[in-house]
Amino acid sequence: MNTALIGVDWGTSNLRAWAFDGQGRVLAEASNDAGVSTVASGQFAGVLRALVGEWSDGTTPIILGGMVGSRQGWREAPYLPCPAQLSNLADQALRLEAGIGPGWIVPGLSCEASDGILDVMRGEEVQLAGANVADGTVLLPGTHSKWVRMSAGAACSVRTVMTGELFALLTRHSLLGRLMAPGGDDPDAFDLGVDRSLASPAISASLFSVRTEGLFQRIAPSSLSDYLSGLLIGAEVAAMTGDAREQVTIVATGKLASRYARALQRAGAPHPLIVPGDEASSLGLLRIARLILEKEPA
Amino acid sequence: MNTALIGVDWGTSNLRAWAFDGQGRVLAEASNDAGVSTVASGQFAGVLRALVGEWSDGTTPIILGGMVGSRQGWREAPYLPCPAQLSNLADQALRLEAGIGPGWIVPGLSCEASDGILDVMRGEEVQLAGANVADGTVLLPGTHSKWVRMSAGAACSVRTVMTGELFALLTRHSLLGRLMAPGGDDPDAFDLGVDRSLASPAISASLFSVRTEGLFQRIAPSSLSDYLSGLLIGAEVAAMTGDAREQVTIVATGKLASRYARALQRAGAPHPLIVPGDEASSLGLLRIARLILEKEPA
Repeated sequence: MNTALIGVDWGTSNLRAWAFDGQGRVLAEASNDAGVSTVASGQFAGVLRALVGEWSDGTTPIILGGMVGSRQGWREAPYLPCPAQLSNLADQALRLEAGIGPGWIVPGLSCEASDGILDVMRGEEVQLAGANVADGTVLLPGTHSKWVRMSAGAACSVRTVMTGELFALLTRHSLLGRLMAPGGDDPDAFDLGVDRSLASPAISASLFSVRTEGLFQRIAPSSLSDYLSGLLIGAEVAAMTGDAREQVTIVATGKLASRYARALQRAGAPHPLIVPGDEASSLGLLRIARLILEKEPA
Repeated sequence: MNTALIGVDWGTSNLRAWAFDGQGRVLAEASNDAGVSTVASGQFAGVLRALVGEWSDGTTPIILGGMVGSRQGWREAPYLPCPAQLSNLADQALRLEAGIGPGWIVPGLSCEASDGILDVMRGEEVQLAGANVADGTVLLPGTHSKWVRMSAGAACSVRTVMTGELFALLTRHSLLGRLMAPGGDDPDAFDLGVDRSLASPAISASLFSVRTEGLFQRIAPSSLSDYLSGLLIGAEVAAMTGDAREQVTIVATGKLASRYARALQRAGAPHPLIVPGDEASSLGLLRIARLILEKEPA
């Protein structure tokens, strides 16, 4: 296999890799669950070799993004302060010997907002490079959703919203989960939650209604998690879009993307652009690697 | 002992009781951890007798409030719709034979707000009767804080805010708890959280800062829980007081009361009135019982 570049997305719980040819076409893909949290210090090169060693001739450049660059990862790469261009990510990439070839770890991003709130991302900056939005808002939803304002090709602000983690905590560990039953995928319950949060985004004061709607049998047990999801996503959209009903680019697929698209539209925003997360990851790694290799051929 | 009335606050995890004389003075107090969640169906009379049987001559009236009136309790008492007067609680009390004398269970309250959100309380209505606020806002903080608007002696609206439960979930089960260390009682970290939430009450978009403030060592590990507490209490106060900077009556004691008092003052409200929870419970039971016994002597 004539691999020109290996791209690696190495997160907390998963390891995924792509082999690219000289034209940037994907020659092969591979993944396993050897996420950073499962790899002991000193074992990263071996784990990488086991997955993609056969793609490299020993000189193939390797670009790595994600938690692999955290303190718990292979080597700690810095957080670049915002505003940051794609080219800054390439310039500040951390050089390392990756065992199967020369490697670079993509740095994270950090932003301090005008309200003093400090935020960071690590891993999503690769998808951001892949989404390739010059001006506008990019949403990377998930356990910790990231909202990024792009201006003239630079990431100008980052805000993390813990919607996915709050949903998991509240369904698994709180009183709200007690009345829930599995099964439902109820768009009406979701919409009711979204609309209530758009009207009144203070979730502290609305979450308890998940219990009362169940207690008084106004929402079926199997639909209560959809209602909670609507409350949380609606509050996120309300907090992050304000009155600006601009078009948002969502980096996600499936149900996650469609729920956010639905909530954005109910908030009055135009239908968002959707970029699949895998595509954004592989394309982002490719773009950053090309900028690195232009200056510093492997 | 010449007991004229026995008052019982029977919650999910605790059972507390007071013996009153004919003038409403407390003759004795007793409590144990035989909360409703620990008592099997059919065993309530026995558990009550074990704690306070010796206070009764077999005809002493017994007034009971709290989760003892829930579906999982001794007998299910209804929820009275708002607006509800103290006298409505007495009128709708559920008569039962309490084994050691004639008993009444105080009903709960339910309110549907103009935004369609339904809310309930059970147990706090007794403390509300004890706090005896004719007009204004009463706050009963805790795992599930209750905010009640009183008008002409009637509870006109109830809103539950899950601040205490969110704090417990986030410190015990979320990523935010990982960087926390025990020990601190840091008023500056608390105030910073309060002020940030008062400026921007969408906690979805600020909670992640607990992690970043720790990660970048701007707040010490032992102070991170104070910062989180400030964010949550600040958001609660912002959502529930709006621009109306009226005086609030807080039913609580100690650190809980002082944290809410501090947050209310930072929001521009006058120093709240503080009513200790135990005092509100015993006085509330006494007041409701007197109204019942006026009409229907035991």
